[in-house]
Amino acid sequence: FKAKPVPEDTKVNRKIQKESSKVVNMVDIEDLGDKVSYCRCWRSKKFPLCDGSHTKHNEETGDNVGPLVLKRKGSA
Amino acid sequence: FKAKPVPEDTKVNRKIQKESSKVVNMVDIEDLGDKVSYCRCWRSKKFPLCDGSHTKHNEETGDNVGPLVLKRKGSA
Repeated sequence: FKAKPVPEDTKVNRKIQKESSKVVNMVDIEDLGDKVSYCRCWRSKKFPLCDGSHTKHNEETGDNVGPLVLKRKGSA
Repeated sequence: FKAKPVPEDTKVNRKIQKESSKVVNMVDIEDLGDKVSYCRCWRSKKFPLCDGSHTKHNEETGDNVGPLVLKRKGSA
């Protein structure tokens, strides 16, 4: 028997830096390459960078999250 | 009576662009100002930008998520 949980908000981040009270990543814009993807699903093994883990997360949960992609004009 | 849900993965994004199969935001690095924060809690009313909604989310759920902050060296 599994009652349908009341849809109150749930945690977004389950495992990353849980000893920290708030995980904020600061990035110097000058250090950015031509194209870099940053994780927003909090499942990446290379957090804060995206490693494609959102695909498995979306499949398992029916979610639709994806990364923030920073790119320079003219790069692919 | 509310059964403790089995801790399998849950959705990260509850409301943002749910008609889309994957929410990816592309940003041109050249267009970035001195300092800009991008949302990673999926609760911001100004998504993809951070509007501080992570504070309320963290308080309500005991989570510890925060934004990705892009800044130019020498800016505050």
